[in-house]
Amino acid sequence: MEKISFNKVTVIGVGLIGGSLAIKLKEKKLARTIVGVGRGIANLEAAKRLGVVDSFTRDVKEGVKGSDLIVVAVPVQSILPVIKAAAPYIEKGSIVTDVGSVKKDVIKNAESLMPEGVSFVGAHPVAGTENSGVEAAFSGLFEGRKCIITPTANTDKKALEVVKRIWEEAGARVICMDAERHDIVLAAISHLPHMIAYSLVNTVSDIESHNEEILSYSAGGFMDFTRIASSSPEMWRGICTMNSDAIVEMIELFEKRLKALRRLIEEGDSEGLKGEFERAKNLRDSLKKYRQQTAKI
Amino acid sequence: MEKISFNKVTVIGVGLIGGSLAIKLKEKKLARTIVGVGRGIANLEAAKRLGVVDSFTRDVKEGVKGSDLIVVAVPVQSILPVIKAAAPYIEKGSIVTDVGSVKKDVIKNAESLMPEGVSFVGAHPVAGTENSGVEAAFSGLFEGRKCIITPTANTDKKALEVVKRIWEEAGARVICMDAERHDIVLAAISHLPHMIAYSLVNTVSDIESHNEEILSYSAGGFMDFTRIASSSPEMWRGICTMNSDAIVEMIELFEKRLKALRRLIEEGDSEGLKGEFERAKNLRDSLKKYRQQTAKI
Repeated sequence: MEKISFNKVTVIGVGLIGGSLAIKLKEKKLARTIVGVGRGIANLEAAKRLGVVDSFTRDVKEGVKGSDLIVVAVPVQSILPVIKAAAPYIEKGSIVTDVGSVKKDVIKNAESLMPEGVSFVGAHPVAGTENSGVEAAFSGLFEGRKCIITPTANTDKKALEVVKRIWEEAGARVICMDAERHDIVLAAISHLPHMIAYSLVNTVSDIESHNEEILSYSAGGFMDFTRIASSSPEMWRGICTMNSDAIVEMIELFEKRLKALRRLIEEGDSEGLKGEFERAKNLRDSLKKYRQQTAKI
Repeated sequence: MEKISFNKVTVIGVGLIGGSLAIKLKEKKLARTIVGVGRGIANLEAAKRLGVVDSFTRDVKEGVKGSDLIVVAVPVQSILPVIKAAAPYIEKGSIVTDVGSVKKDVIKNAESLMPEGVSFVGAHPVAGTENSGVEAAFSGLFEGRKCIITPTANTDKKALEVVKRIWEEAGARVICMDAERHDIVLAAISHLPHMIAYSLVNTVSDIESHNEEILSYSAGGFMDFTRIASSSPEMWRGICTMNSDAIVEMIELFEKRLKALRRLIEEGDSEGLKGEFERAKNLRDSLKKYRQQTAKI
């Protein structure tokens, strides 16, 4: 396996994901120096104080100067604007990569924005917590998680290998996938669940307003939903804007399912209800089995 | 505080809830003997083998004979039929209580089914896991959880105190509430989340059928949903049948919220989306604060 190491790494957006990757690169001594770039001075100062980055700047031009690796870890809606702003100052031979949860739009446009001799490789580490900002970052965030890389026909093979190695070093299992398929898969297993969690929490909040103290009775199930619904609003509005078609399609499929379940309840169809619930339970059980199998590999 | 102790306790339905209560009563030496009653012989044998009950029978008449406490811990739709079958054999001075997740229908009818001198007190320990059956039972299940007791104007004051004490001994915080309000509160914070989790899991399962391996990418959020959706189908069909009006009302409120969110996504209303997500996050944060406060008390 090829060894990788960088002279200067620039992390644009030193939040949960960007920060955790920086911590890992430092831990494994893969970067001589790491520069953080961002807008919020408090977060950048925290990144420096915590040793996540060696230095920081709010100036993209200065930040990318002389870097051989640039990691764009800003909310998805800002990835292309950031790349556009940075592009003129990126040096030949550098690799640019991102960590966004939506890929099709970014992939379609990022390659053409690269200056001569600079390679772009899109990546999405499927990891995260409900916390955000550099203070939530930690070295083990990507351990055992998947990282989906979305190369195109034009992707430089060597740069692709380097980005793969970065995520393997971070502890992730790397999978390559078409950007369009990535966006559909993520809409189903991540974006839809989040939209549902947000809607549920807001529904219960509506009910609370004319049914005092209802929330004080909340137990296990509902608390899990509120945790999911407490992820970064800034990040999620970006995801919704960038992957709207696939998310709307998934919401529609879900609406149909819920409507069918509501009918079964209205009609008191006890057998139908049991079938519906058993089906979900079976999926869970087969998923658990699948996870145990893959864990063994 | 009054001390309680029983000569013979009958637990009808020795599953997760009934079994965990039996374990606790034994642990605290509050029952001289505990008899399990049920339909499934394998589960009853397991209950005996695990020491959860001292003996068992499939005959309700024999099971309740000479008991001073009868705990009906069967799925909600079976509570009234079980009480009806047991009533003629329950001895004067006994207390009958249940643990059902739906209360209005049971409370309305259970009192009139009691023989002269027998008291009924409805209770609902808000606790559980996704597992069912006596092998999932454990002593700490009710620790720190709420137990909602739903007395009526006719409830015997002494019997009410006894049932309160039982649940306090089991580690729960006892709250008294009107049965109708109980059913609305539970529909919002427990039944609705479960219906949504079941629908989501089945939606993703539909998508999987024409989009292979989609599930292998599932991460944190979705796994939480599948856990919620793996609770006992038998139990949930009962809850849906017994609390259909309130559940349907909650589903309708949720459908409106989700539809509004879908519109914001379709329209690309970035500010509207952020507001929606922030609102949910704020609720979570205030809920966390609330929990920390009550934990201190």
